[in-house]
Amino acid sequence: YGKNTIKFLRLHKEGKKHFVKEVEVCTHLRLTSAQEYLDGNNSLVIPTDTIKNIVLVLAKKHGIPTIEQFAIDICKHFMTTFCQVGYVKTYVQEVPWQRLHENGVPHIHSFICVPDGIRFCEAEQCRNGPLVVFAGIKDLKLMKTTQSGFEGFYKNEHTTLPERNDRILCGELFCKWSYGDCKDFDFDCIWYKNKIRECILEAFAGPPDCGEYSPSYQKTVNCIQMCILSKVSQVQVIEVVLNNTFYNVVDMTNLGLINDKEVLVPVETPYGSCACTLGRKKFLEA
Amino acid sequence: YGKNTIKFLRLHKEGKKHFVKEVEVCTHLRLTSAQEYLDGNNSLVIPTDTIKNIVLVLAKKHGIPTIEQFAIDICKHFMTTFCQVGYVKTYVQEVPWQRLHENGVPHIHSFICVPDGIRFCEAEQCRNGPLVVFAGIKDLKLMKTTQSGFEGFYKNEHTTLPERNDRILCGELFCKWSYGDCKDFDFDCIWYKNKIRECILEAFAGPPDCGEYSPSYQKTVNCIQMCILSKVSQVQVIEVVLNNTFYNVVDMTNLGLINDKEVLVPVETPYGSCACTLGRKKFLEA
Amino acid sequence: YGKNTIKFLRLHKEGKKHFVKEVEVCTHLRLTSAQEYLDGNNSLVIPTDTIKNIVLVLAKKHGIPTIEQFAIDICKHFMTTFCQVGYVKTYVQEVPWQRLHENGVPHIHSFICVPDGIRFCEAEQCRNGPLVVFAGIKDLKLMKTTQSGFEGFYKNEHTTLPERNDRILCGELFCKWSYGDCKDFDFDCIWYKNKIRECILEAFAGPPDCGEYSPSYQKTVNCIQMCILSKVSQVQVIEVVLNNTFYNVVDMTNLGLINDKEVLVPVETPYGSCACTLGRKKFLEA
Amino acid sequence: YGKNTIKFLRLHKEGKKHFVKEVEVCTHLRLTSAQEYLDGNNSLVIPTDTIKNIVLVLAKKHGIPTIEQFAIDICKHFMTTFCQVGYVKTYVQEVPWQRLHENGVPHIHSFICVPDGIRFCEAEQCRNGPLVVFAGIKDLKLMKTTQSGFEGFYKNEHTTLPERNDRILCGELFCKWSYGDCKDFDFDCIWYKNKIRECILEAFAGPPDCGEYSPSYQKTVNCIQMCILSKVSQVQVIEVVLNNTFYNVVDMTNLGLINDKEVLVPVETPYGSCACTLGRKKFLEA
Repeated sequence: YGKNTIKFLRLHKEGKKHFVKEVEVCTHLRLTSAQEYLDGNNSLVIPTDTIKNIVLVLAKKHGIPTIEQFAIDICKHFMTTFCQVGYVKTYVQEVPWQRLHENGVPHIHSFICVPDGIRFCEAEQCRNGPLVVFAGIKDLKLMKTTQSGFEGFYKNEHTTLPERNDRILCGELFCKWSYGDCKDFDFDCIWYKNKIRECILEAFAGPPDCGEYSPSYQKTVNCIQMCILSKVSQVQVIEVVLNNTFYNVVDMTNLGLINDKEVLVPVETPYGSCACTLGRKKFLEA
Repeated sequence: YGKNTIKFLRLHKEGKKHFVKEVEVCTHLRLTSAQEYLDGNNSLVIPTDTIKNIVLVLAKKHGIPTIEQFAIDICKHFMTTFCQVGYVKTYVQEVPWQRLHENGVPHIHSFICVPDGIRFCEAEQCRNGPLVVFAGIKDLKLMKTTQSGFEGFYKNEHTTLPERNDRILCGELFCKWSYGDCKDFDFDCIWYKNKIRECILEAFAGPPDCGEYSPSYQKTVNCIQMCILSKVSQVQVIEVVLNNTFYNVVDMTNLGLINDKEVLVPVETPYGSCACTLGRKKFLEA
Repeated sequence: YGKNTIKFLRLHKEGKKHFVKEVEVCTHLRLTSAQEYLDGNNSLVIPTDTIKNIVLVLAKKHGIPTIEQFAIDICKHFMTTFCQVGYVKTYVQEVPWQRLHENGVPHIHSFICVPDGIRFCEAEQCRNGPLVVFAGIKDLKLMKTTQSGFEGFYKNEHTTLPERNDRILCGELFCKWSYGDCKDFDFDCIWYKNKIRECILEAFAGPPDCGEYSPSYQKTVNCIQMCILSKVSQVQVIEVVLNNTFYNVVDMTNLGLINDKEVLVPVETPYGSCACTLGRKKFLEA
Repeated sequence: YGKNTIKFLRLHKEGKKHFVKEVEVCTHLRLTSAQEYLDGNNSLVIPTDTIKNIVLVLAKKHGIPTIEQFAIDICKHFMTTFCQVGYVKTYVQEVPWQRLHENGVPHIHSFICVPDGIRFCEAEQCRNGPLVVFAGIKDLKLMKTTQSGFEGFYKNEHTTLPERNDRILCGELFCKWSYGDCKDFDFDCIWYKNKIRECILEAFAGPPDCGEYSPSYQKTVNCIQMCILSKVSQVQVIEVVLNNTFYNVVDMTNLGLINDKEVLVPVETPYGSCACTLGRKKFLEA
């Protein structure tokens, strides 16, 4: 199979107001043939350059109403146009440009890049199979400075970690969910009306006045999943990965000081991540 | 000389409300001696590990009220404590943690990382010289989708660039300014009361309803400088660097389409930057 | 499941001669339980810190004779020791330290990092399933300045790429193969005696005096696979991915010069990759 | 001033044998004017695109005999052609392509990227000033597993580092030197005949059979400088920076094991660097 990445910007105007979408599109194609590998016969090979042209032409003709719809359109184009394609997958992610505001007034053509979580999506299809759509958010860095612990874990002769009930919980979140049978979804409507991003932040943080105790990274991952499944009916399966950053309280006793969780250093290694995929009615993987 | 970097988090509580500051601190020291290089005589060398301890102890004892004050305190400590130090410079940058809000309510202990511009500062001192403080913002990515051009430039036989009066202006901004004789500044007050960040964004973007035409990256750099010098009386000299990202309108004529600045691709190379340092009353460097 | 990465150095002496192996080890564990996600019950959870300790203790006790054997030992340890583990995978990659030589004489304790291809391996086991071992090399950057073309590909209205029979072929190679039923393999012996690295380089480059024409990235990928399968009898299945870097001949006609493939610029986007997995007797995927 | 980076490949043939040089060239220009910043008057501005064209045309016409000569040629071109240029600096670094060998036979057109130290150079000139040339090597990662210690350093109440006489010395080396009055140097000849790279490695490592004890990073930096100054008569001043990577011996006592410097972990933070600039007859900076 072949993979192909292109980055571009789609500009769109309504009167004097500008709208900008910059995306990175990665298209995977698998052909039903093998002759290009075995014999060097290129007659069915679709060049990288052609794939790039198709993506740009689709963006020019129809714009990028939502990244999900754009990914679907690209998949459909390849499946419809090229009978030698056996499988196609399109991944699209957004550069997080946000409109500038001056004293609350939106600017008509100026933008700032605010990378506090990146929206992405994936559309995937095998020949004669259904078109499946995924959406998600990644690179969302969050921290709770209390209401987190880790106790009662499995112990043996290799255990040196002390139990803690007031640690820092910090990590980078990756969430990806699949929409079931998606005919005519308004993907931006699902995203904004269900406040998916807000929902993730709340499940992580708990109520603003007191938070909610997290007994482990695993439980926090599960809270985020349950929250999205309960709020967004179109989501069928959700995968959450939390890349943990550990912080150690610096021992200052030999410097004559008592450090009451005031100064902490991030621990680079070992680092870990915990991940879980949860579906409606059944567990897929734990 | 020696250089030394440490990253840590300072946590601070007021009642149940948590305040977090994560910083990267880089300390440069130059000794008045040369015997450690020439003879391997380490008797005056201050180990990296000791420098780390000092930075952490200062953070533990006094907190990090502002990064500028913290940098000043570190410099003063080294100059006062070690007579073998001939020069010290401390660079501090913030990890951009922002308090989470749920429906407008601030969370008491949860934070999100929002890297839309990084605040940093520098304090610097030679023995018997004044302590000089710099502050700045970097990694601020901005874009204007119109009101930018580049015309009337110098031309000769190697010129192939066409003149343009409606291009995209996109870049990453670095601003660094020095405060003059700084005795008892409230650095956060200067930052927030003068709205330095807002001032930079406005100088880049122009009025929200129409923008302001930029005839070159150079002129935009100068606008930002003039704006800060006029608004913030404590600033003596300001350096601005704009790393340009160029976008080319894709030629789609051989694909049978007219692309009216709708689809553009970022150009990775050549990339450029333009920089200028401007001081009160006189040009330092152009 | 959980993932965990640690980086460390294992030093070993024979007389006054030092041997160094620096590795990055990533261990994936999946438990048979789900209670840690659903109920916050940590009683079966093996902390990241314990996993780190186990990896370090195994390295201390037995050294790292080969990275493959080390990965196998780690997998076996987790399967044997923890009945709650349902699946374990261990990935190990080497930091490419090479012994320094002075006028041909090997240095007894000095090394230089030479990252011209990184060796890695993977061992994987499900409870009650076989232990499977993979090995490979990645980040191998190669270039042929001629004997490469791309012609006779599929064309339609979106095709703009011209046919070429003398282009530059440049890319970064990733190769990963599985050893079948591996009881008591001497993995370093397989690697060095079969000259796997040399074999890959020869399949890419062809004979030193004339090279071999490559009609496509795909065909070159297949040559590398065929070469390893034919030389190394223990290899059952091999996956090769070639991340392409394209170079364009700069058009200098408007600068009054004819550029006969003398000056070329790398094209950052679109970039592509082609991949193929090949097994003995049958195609698994094309 | 303005800065501008371009990356390209120069291919050259002698009979059927191919020679390849891929370089990254960064050109800084400072104009004598300020009107482009103050008034948006672009009439003296040399566009990035023109600078790129000039660099490519020079590479096309004269090739890249040595990177130093190429940097000199670019500087001279800008100073000679544009009277509005007040200062020009050109930095050139090589992509470390090496010719492939099969059983000792060099391949006529295949290359492998071996990044074990990157050669670079700089040429610099102010209007009416001399043209100064620098050369250097960077990203050279070296390690000694013994014959290194750090003792007798300055101690006070913030000192917690123990003295050590058998630690690991590991770091990334940056060396940059200036050639004095350079009329007609054969820069590759200086490089290869004086074995500059070998000289650096030997100064770092000591004799192959026993090494040489390093009492500090500082002393090792000085050894490298002295060695180059003594071997290469054309070198006037030399700057060496050593970015240290520290390795800690893992304490395994609570795991029931004695770790005799067998298992070590790299310490990410604090990290440090030590640097020194040394000139003939006098110290410039310590």
